[in-house]
Amino acid sequence: MSHTDTQAPHIALISGTLDLTFLKTAFETSGLNAQLSIYPEVGYETADIAVAWNPLHGILAAMPNLKMVHSIAAGLDNIFADPNLPAVPVCRVVDSQHALGMAEYAIWSVLLFHREMDRHLQNAAHKRWERPAQRAAQDYTVGILGFGAIGRTVGRSLCALNYNVRAWARSPKNEEGISTYCGDGQLPDFLSGCDALICLLPLTDATRGILNAGLFALLPAGAAIINMGRGEHMVEADLLAGIDSGHLRGAVLDVFLKEPLPQESPLWDHPKVFATPHIASMPNPKDVAAQIFENAIRVLAGQEPLNAGSRESGY
Amino acid sequence: MSHTDTQAPHIALISGTLDLTFLKTAFETSGLNAQLSIYPEVGYETADIAVAWNPLHGILAAMPNLKMVHSIAAGLDNIFADPNLPAVPVCRVVDSQHALGMAEYAIWSVLLFHREMDRHLQNAAHKRWERPAQRAAQDYTVGILGFGAIGRTVGRSLCALNYNVRAWARSPKNEEGISTYCGDGQLPDFLSGCDALICLLPLTDATRGILNAGLFALLPAGAAIINMGRGEHMVEADLLAGIDSGHLRGAVLDVFLKEPLPQESPLWDHPKVFATPHIASMPNPKDVAAQIFENAIRVLAGQEPLNAGSRESGY
Repeated sequence: MSHTDTQAPHIALISGTLDLTFLKTAFETSGLNAQLSIYPEVGYETADIAVAWNPLHGILAAMPNLKMVHSIAAGLDNIFADPNLPAVPVCRVVDSQHALGMAEYAIWSVLLFHREMDRHLQNAAHKRWERPAQRAAQDYTVGILGFGAIGRTVGRSLCALNYNVRAWARSPKNEEGISTYCGDGQLPDFLSGCDALICLLPLTDATRGILNAGLFALLPAGAAIINMGRGEHMVEADLLAGIDSGHLRGAVLDVFLKEPLPQESPLWDHPKVFATPHIASMPNPKDVAAQIFENAIRVLAGQEPLNAGSRESGY
Repeated sequence: MSHTDTQAPHIALISGTLDLTFLKTAFETSGLNAQLSIYPEVGYETADIAVAWNPLHGILAAMPNLKMVHSIAAGLDNIFADPNLPAVPVCRVVDSQHALGMAEYAIWSVLLFHREMDRHLQNAAHKRWERPAQRAAQDYTVGILGFGAIGRTVGRSLCALNYNVRAWARSPKNEEGISTYCGDGQLPDFLSGCDALICLLPLTDATRGILNAGLFALLPAGAAIINMGRGEHMVEADLLAGIDSGHLRGAVLDVFLKEPLPQESPLWDHPKVFATPHIASMPNPKDVAAQIFENAIRVLAGQEPLNAGSRESGY
């Protein structure tokens, strides 16, 4: 179905934490024919579509024409957190370029530990020339916790580098070349073989705080943690205790309970923690705008939107 | 042709810089039926085959039964450097696992710069939360200087991650998906587009000191250097001047003019240099032993050895 100028959707950009002007600019420079309002500018209330990121609670409920809420990324937790969320579809951005960026970050982090670049960085700081024996990638097991679209892309790219890859999810999954585990019952078996564990879970009530001392104890000694999910998945004190006891090798963290990471956080300069500022992958704003626009056109034409999340599962 | 116990080759392990006991152990634990002598133990002089790494000059010329000299890795420069080298074949180890290790190191290093992990590491040390815009891998050009077996494996693995890959060699080369350049005439054009430059050249009189101020000036501003070739390729003072002037982004260096890198070297702790102790890839000793043994059997049976280098080209 083609759309005409008369169908130009009215889209409100709403965030309590981010300046979404960059997304308005992306719509405009891409020539997408939409009427755009940025909250709290006058006029946003009558929009058909809300593009939201950490919206102030209650704002969406006060929009009488609202037909869809769209995230600006894969995560929907920041939208489902609104207790007054209206009963309209809530959709995510599914961006293959974004997943590739996540894969790049995962590969760099896995190589950091597998190829002991963490140790070499420390040794260089102390001018130590030390040449440990090397392990082949096929003898190094990477576990992926959470196996949605991003997890699959990350898993495939690690398989292409010959890593031994396994994945865990709440529901059964299949992927060639990857051993899959599901549910709480198979979690200990999954964890017991992981040299590195990558968290790519959605944030739900069931996954909040999942990276805790109990889970770390099920990993083999020397395992490394890579958190690319949400800061709320991690019990930061348990991570530091696990590293400082020597049980965990170290961690690469892209997400934190509080962002920006506070100055007083011990994660900034712990010698075995590599903290990055939530940059594992930042979607291209034009790609995000195009996908939101397409979904808006679908909804205004009475079609089902693409990539809708589930309020029940929380993602 | 099968070989019998009576053909067990006599192999001497000869190095002026490395303890080659690990290789003797690899022969023995692999059950390879060879008579092994380690220089300067009595008896090495009568060996048929010399396995050499930085041999003291003149040692090989004093071995009357010598039929082949074998390196323990890809590089032959350390053997061709002997002015009294006898006129026997000089062979390299060609190890696909070794090339994969090189590819891992190259990928980690390219991601370090492309994904600005170098900047994030510095920012974390100063507790700075800074989120620069990201470039897609296809918009990032990696140049490979030297395009032999290892260069091809590295190039293919970078192509698989969507990088824009180009390669330069002395003689014409072809590889699907990689733009190839050859000879001195095409070197400036090759260099002018490189966001990151990986040196995988053999060390010859023509390539010694090739990574110098003149070459760096042909790179675009902000280019990064990754040296996985030999320390002698690099004019270290020119590299530091290029980085400190701001023209070069930084460097990952695995090889040095003097190894182990001396305590007084400024490369150890320069904030934009990542120095590793010649570990980009260490071949599996059992694979090396098996390949040397196979070549020894060929030579004793009167066949041409595999993977012989050229004295004329120097590699």
